Amino acid sequence: MFHLSLILNLRQLSRKILYISRLTHTIYPLTIREIYDKKPLNQSINLIGYLLNVRKLKTHYFLDLFDGSLTNNQKHLQVVASLDKHPTLPHLTYGCSINVQGKLIRSDHPKQELELQADHINLINSCDAFNYPIKPKFEQTLLMLRQNEHLRLRSTFAQAIFRLRSQLMFSLYEYFFKHNFIHIQTPCLTQNDCEGGGETFRIQPYQSQTTHTEKEYFNKQVYLTVSGQLHLETAANGFGRVYTLNPAFRADKTLSRFHLAEFWMLEVEVAGLTKLDQLLDAYTDLVRTTTTEIYNKCPEEFKYLVNNNIQSTYIDQLLNQNDYPRINYKEAVEYLRKSVDFHDFPDNGDFNRAHENYLCQKLMNNQAFFVINYPKTLKPFYMLMNDDDTTVANFDFIFPSVGELSGGSLREHRYENLKLRLDELDITRDLQWYLDLRGFGGMPTAGFGLGIERFLMAITGIDNVRDFILFPRFYQHCDG
Amino acid sequence: MFHLSLILNLRQLSRKILYISRLTHTIYPLTIREIYDKKPLNQSINLIGYLLNVRKLKTHYFLDLFDGSLTNNQKHLQVVASLDKHPTLPHLTYGCSINVQGKLIRSDHPKQELELQADHINLINSCDAFNYPIKPKFEQTLLMLRQNEHLRLRSTFAQAIFRLRSQLMFSLYEYFFKHNFIHIQTPCLTQNDCEGGGETFRIQPYQSQTTHTEKEYFNKQVYLTVSGQLHLETAANGFGRVYTLNPAFRADKTLSRFHLAEFWMLEVEVAGLTKLDQLLDAYTDLVRTTTTEIYNKCPEEFKYLVNNNIQSTYIDQLLNQNDYPRINYKEAVEYLRKSVDFHDFPDNGDFNRAHENYLCQKLMNNQAFFVINYPKTLKPFYMLMNDDDTTVANFDFIFPSVGELSGGSLREHRYENLKLRLDELDITRDLQWYLDLRGFGGMPTAGFGLGIERFLMAITGIDNVRDFILFPRFYQHCDG
Repeated sequence: MFHLSLILNLRQLSRKILYISRLTHTIYPLTIREIYDKKPLNQSINLIGYLLNVRKLKTHYFLDLFDGSLTNNQKHLQVVASLDKHPTLPHLTYGCSINVQGKLIRSDHPKQELELQADHINLINSCDAFNYPIKPKFEQTLLMLRQNEHLRLRSTFAQAIFRLRSQLMFSLYEYFFKHNFIHIQTPCLTQNDCEGGGETFRIQPYQSQTTHTEKEYFNKQVYLTVSGQLHLETAANGFGRVYTLNPAFRADKTLSRFHLAEFWMLEVEVAGLTKLDQLLDAYTDLVRTTTTEIYNKCPEEFKYLVNNNIQSTYIDQLLNQNDYPRINYKEAVEYLRKSVDFHDFPDNGDFNRAHENYLCQKLMNNQAFFVINYPKTLKPFYMLMNDDDTTVANFDFIFPSVGELSGGSLREHRYENLKLRLDELDITRDLQWYLDLRGFGGMPTAGFGLGIERFLMAITGIDNVRDFILFPRFYQHCDG
Repeated sequence: MFHLSLILNLRQLSRKILYISRLTHTIYPLTIREIYDKKPLNQSINLIGYLLNVRKLKTHYFLDLFDGSLTNNQKHLQVVASLDKHPTLPHLTYGCSINVQGKLIRSDHPKQELELQADHINLINSCDAFNYPIKPKFEQTLLMLRQNEHLRLRSTFAQAIFRLRSQLMFSLYEYFFKHNFIHIQTPCLTQNDCEGGGETFRIQPYQSQTTHTEKEYFNKQVYLTVSGQLHLETAANGFGRVYTLNPAFRADKTLSRFHLAEFWMLEVEVAGLTKLDQLLDAYTDLVRTTTTEIYNKCPEEFKYLVNNNIQSTYIDQLLNQNDYPRINYKEAVEYLRKSVDFHDFPDNGDFNRAHENYLCQKLMNNQAFFVINYPKTLKPFYMLMNDDDTTVANFDFIFPSVGELSGGSLREHRYENLKLRLDELDITRDLQWYLDLRGFGGMPTAGFGLGIERFLMAITGIDNVRDFILFPRFYQHCDG
């Protein structure tokens, strides 16, 4: 049984206990970040970390201890130890990990505020410094970090990037929480390959131990999802406002700096959004609010990137823009055809990166913009047909230097229209469940997808998606 | 270039604009939840939703409109419409979706506060009520909802459950954000099958279009991850405090109510946790804090479940317990051997569900507890060997009626010891990158995993993991 009053009292008690334990830092080991925050002077302190630098001055050693809790210039704490108390000091080198216990005091040195006087130092693991790719004296190039995926998060540079990613994820969760969205996890394994065609990964059957023949684990061929949208629509029909922030998979055989075989995608679906302009407003609000949040919460990380010549050229277009130009596909094609390079652009042709770049640079003067109302032949079956019966109510969002950052649409919510489209494509049987949503009174919904790694390209100005995901997977590459 | 001052000014401007737009609700369509919150009386209002009930009284129709924005008893808004103004009213039935525009007024009826006087009503999609599995007059059984995965989120019952899931996700994110953890996304596609053995899903090679032979997309056999832990350790070595909340995959051929082929798992990894007791304290703090948060934020959902005879029998063990009994594997075995049923429990034998239940019920009087220090032969290579050289510093957390809710350990951070274990198992070559973490000065880390669906079983008392995930995947089942 459910004892409400009891639970209430015990809850108050547990809160009190939690509060006490937070003050005394007993839950998690102390970090350098907390030391700079709270400055527990003259107290005995225990820390674990790496050595970023080892200097000897007469009988004393000065060790720069780093534990990854800070990105900025104050990211390490200086440890002072005397050789006579610690005869093992000469074994300590750059990159090794130590445990140090000592007293925190104010430093005499003008460049640092605090230092730790060591009472005990234990070497935990030494470091093969010769082969260690994370070098002490210079900032690693992104390429070198890419070649050492398992070690790269020890570099301040990669740390700044992944702190931004972590903050982005939280800012997105917070945005949707505040707007009363329900967070849904759509499946990675799906029987639906209607969107991806040849670009989906398939799950391999297993060997039956009795018959030694191959057998499907599921009762059918199963794929890795390219998008959770169709599944998410079932939830939008329940809750009205839903989103998913999940991995998605594409078996593209490309090595471009914009593509990953496994990437993270935000997908948003909202009931009652029945005008394309409303959807574009919602999208604009989301990217502006979350980018502003990241920018406010991570000033040190942005400063660090700027100091290392990472040009976040276009971030102001995310932070401040309340509106983006909205042009029709048709207008965009007309503009392309006026150019020398693209004068023979075909009717109902799809835009590739060269077209997007040209439009962004020449027509839009390097401003981000929406292209709306594409021909239905270019887009998937689920997009809402416009009254002209030839175009759909969709958008692509083109961002300078990144290209297509997002796509979205109103969904075809009319049962008869959707059934016609599915019949035309001969996929009605596979998608009966999706058609059902309309057959049982479905609400009109609209939504969009936003690739997390491309969004981070736009925010930071770093021009390769592989720098934003810990273990990137792409054609012929899956390490670790 | 980065124009800090410009961005700062524009940021203030964008904030102001955002504030205005929030007040006027222009971003997302109005919901019934917002109407009950803000009570915009005598204003013209536009809503989209389903009909939960249609009643006729003389010349007037009374429609219960529902849009999924609320779980409680006030979840619908009554719409009043007169037949002479709306001749199509007789076509409206239970389950159909409508768009209604009208004026919000105070209701005369004692049971409801507000009602909407309809000016315009449009039928969007009708509902095949005969075949519609979500019935109006009784609450659906969980079994029936399970058989209609694509429609189940329209039932209040499933909505309550998935609101709790959504709140759990956010409470976890918030907990880690407050404790300065970095959120990492570990890969789903991995070359590492060292943990799962025969239970991993494999990715199928694709057909080469030139040679018509099978070819790996990656340059090797790739699996779906069973755990992100090894990858997460590379991040813990960078940041100190990290977590991942990702899908994980197991190709178990079981149909038990505890197993899914695709499930969501929280994995936490912290540097500097060098005592098992510290890890258990951290784990306890996490489950208590997040459960308390959910319980405070979702009173309506818990009330709804209780009203529908869902017994959340053991939730107080999560809300209030600051400590759980910690018994050694050895003691647990001794206790089992004193029983009639398990007197012949073998040396270094693994516990199955029957053993766990017996220990939980008889030894612990239905209290949750930790079993610690298992024989090394039962556990994976990465767990820290204890000084006795036969057991590892690990825990399993056993929860009444759920069984094993979590497992975790200190990690073998000593280079030489880890290398020996890997050599013994002949997996050094595949895991050179993991060994590298220690070869280049790795910090000691510790961590645990927590299955989201099983955690929700413990929180709600609902006894099947399939009820907590939108499209459950298990042996021979992958619909949609």
